Amino acid sequence: MKVDGKAYRTIWPVDGGAAVEIIDQRRLPHEFVVVRLDSAEAAAQAIRDMWVRGAPLIGATAAYGVALAMARDSSDAGLAAARRLLIETRPTAINLRWALDRMDAALKPLYPDRRAQAALKRAAEICDEDVAINSAIGDHGLKLFQAAWEKKSKRGRLNVLTHCNAGWLATVDWGTAIAPIYKAFDAGLPIHVWVDETRPRNQGASLTAWELSRHGVPHTVIADNAGGHLMQHGQVDLCIVGTDRVTARGDVCNKIGTYLKALAARDNGVPFHVALPSPTIDWTVGDGLKEIPIEERGGAEVTHVSGRNGKGRIETVQVTPDGSPAANPAFDVTPARLVTSLITEKGVCPASAEGLKGLFPEKS
Amino acid sequence: MKVDGKAYRTIWPVDGGAAVEIIDQRRLPHEFVVVRLDSAEAAAQAIRDMWVRGAPLIGATAAYGVALAMARDSSDAGLAAARRLLIETRPTAINLRWALDRMDAALKPLYPDRRAQAALKRAAEICDEDVAINSAIGDHGLKLFQAAWEKKSKRGRLNVLTHCNAGWLATVDWGTAIAPIYKAFDAGLPIHVWVDETRPRNQGASLTAWELSRHGVPHTVIADNAGGHLMQHGQVDLCIVGTDRVTARGDVCNKIGTYLKALAARDNGVPFHVALPSPTIDWTVGDGLKEIPIEERGGAEVTHVSGRNGKGRIETVQVTPDGSPAANPAFDVTPARLVTSLITEKGVCPASAEGLKGLFPEKS
Repeated sequence: MKVDGKAYRTIWPVDGGAAVEIIDQRRLPHEFVVVRLDSAEAAAQAIRDMWVRGAPLIGATAAYGVALAMARDSSDAGLAAARRLLIETRPTAINLRWALDRMDAALKPLYPDRRAQAALKRAAEICDEDVAINSAIGDHGLKLFQAAWEKKSKRGRLNVLTHCNAGWLATVDWGTAIAPIYKAFDAGLPIHVWVDETRPRNQGASLTAWELSRHGVPHTVIADNAGGHLMQHGQVDLCIVGTDRVTARGDVCNKIGTYLKALAARDNGVPFHVALPSPTIDWTVGDGLKEIPIEERGGAEVTHVSGRNGKGRIETVQVTPDGSPAANPAFDVTPARLVTSLITEKGVCPASAEGLKGLFPEKS
Repeated sequence: MKVDGKAYRTIWPVDGGAAVEIIDQRRLPHEFVVVRLDSAEAAAQAIRDMWVRGAPLIGATAAYGVALAMARDSSDAGLAAARRLLIETRPTAINLRWALDRMDAALKPLYPDRRAQAALKRAAEICDEDVAINSAIGDHGLKLFQAAWEKKSKRGRLNVLTHCNAGWLATVDWGTAIAPIYKAFDAGLPIHVWVDETRPRNQGASLTAWELSRHGVPHTVIADNAGGHLMQHGQVDLCIVGTDRVTARGDVCNKIGTYLKALAARDNGVPFHVALPSPTIDWTVGDGLKEIPIEERGGAEVTHVSGRNGKGRIETVQVTPDGSPAANPAFDVTPARLVTSLITEKGVCPASAEGLKGLFPEKS
């Protein structure tokens, strides 16, 4: 999407594939810094130290990491070493493994002297596929947004609430939950986005607010506590969020706090949509609440907050008293009964086993 | 309650009433500083600049402000001037007006030379009454806690979730929602408190965590987003919060985000209790959602966070990008249907017009 008028992806090759460039997302929203990665080691560091984040972008960065490795050593040993290096950066990232598997499948059958060029091509395809998937999610979601706009008789503005960052920064372009927002904005709908700050890591306040503001989409940052009150007072026409995992019966695992917004949406008759690329569906899991283990992250994310101080420097401050412990579950599960629709690249369906099977009959 | 083993109130007279001492709450949780107020002007500043906060403590500070004024000029003009000075500090604080009315009623009929001593006595009575009310709330709430502890067969610990700060720091002593927690802790119940950080002003992370830790009550700070997930997984036995205003039919206006926790409590069968001194009931209002205006505070409370930096200094950092606006509704209304019980100094009742009338028949 656009940054101050210029179109960007989150990763792109430069110098004929001798390097790739990324946005150092650790420095957002206060600084927009493009970083050049010219080796598999640099790509690994960018993943490990979270210069890039979001499952699709991690996969794309790993794919380009393999391509950069092939430019130096395209032997079988070189390919195996690149895979090993990259997979260890984020051992639990499913997309990372998936991207590396696809690179392996494309490169292993080739003679080594063909691999460098083929790797670049395959990495670019992985990126383009992600963009196409997200663009399709955006198109399907746009229809729901247009229906909501008709429903409110095109009066005022279309108020959308989102949680965390499921925007283009988490993907190669468009994003998942934010894709329909960009499509609606680009189509001229008078859209306005309530951006949950998304404690404790503040991905909404920092990343979502940044990408919306740079593309020019009207938005307002709110404390996570405020969404229920806004829904009670008719200030939210629909909610849309991304997800880390959807179960075969439509339960949605997403950033902590999503469940509370889904409860408020249900209590106030506000549609609650979840946008996802279909590989996010885990067909092996049914009951998300019972079966999905929730990552417990460090308490310092709760007790400390980072931001820009009055002198323009990034600083971390402690908000709690010394000695008060903190707990930090990173995700929660929203039961399917609270989800209005799942929006995938294949179309929109109810959040249920039947709904998902209707859209993906090959999984029945 | 106790601070590192020593019992405190939030305000107390010293030097035979020549001054009062308070805790400078702006400096919590990082510094515990006692400040001496020796004039009505000093008391007014402490209220206006939020060295003290919480309706009962503001009232008590204003009452002592009148007493300090009477020591210097106990004429009718002096009394009127003190009232004027103090009431302007927080024009919308109902408790402030109420305390000043009571001081007027006690002092106006007296000869001026009797007023200084009478004012000290009346201010002390106002404080003692607040302590007695909160202690009674604590005793009534304790019974609910004991019942919850029996219900879980006294296994593990009794997990209580609270939002914002309705503790002793907001009152003269005990607090409202936290009073039953102190009573339970002092009675030996193995209580553990989930403390919502309470964005955007972080009263939970700073004040509630501080007062619980200093009294020695086991607690864990969590992001406001986490409570629903904890309830889904059986980690919360009951919720208890304070309130700024309860309507005649039991709707509860409290810090923004309270409504989301009440929804999660209902969805998971967790009792949701609200503790309040009976003057908090606004018998003139029925439908809290429609009739209670919600204060919209400045967006900087959302976009900026204060805390202690690595060098031990208090610093404010910006978490949002430049140019992203923020909205900041300070309260929300939890409909009576989501509230299990109202806990008052007169006893416990259902959150309904009938429940409240049963406890306060004189209001029928």
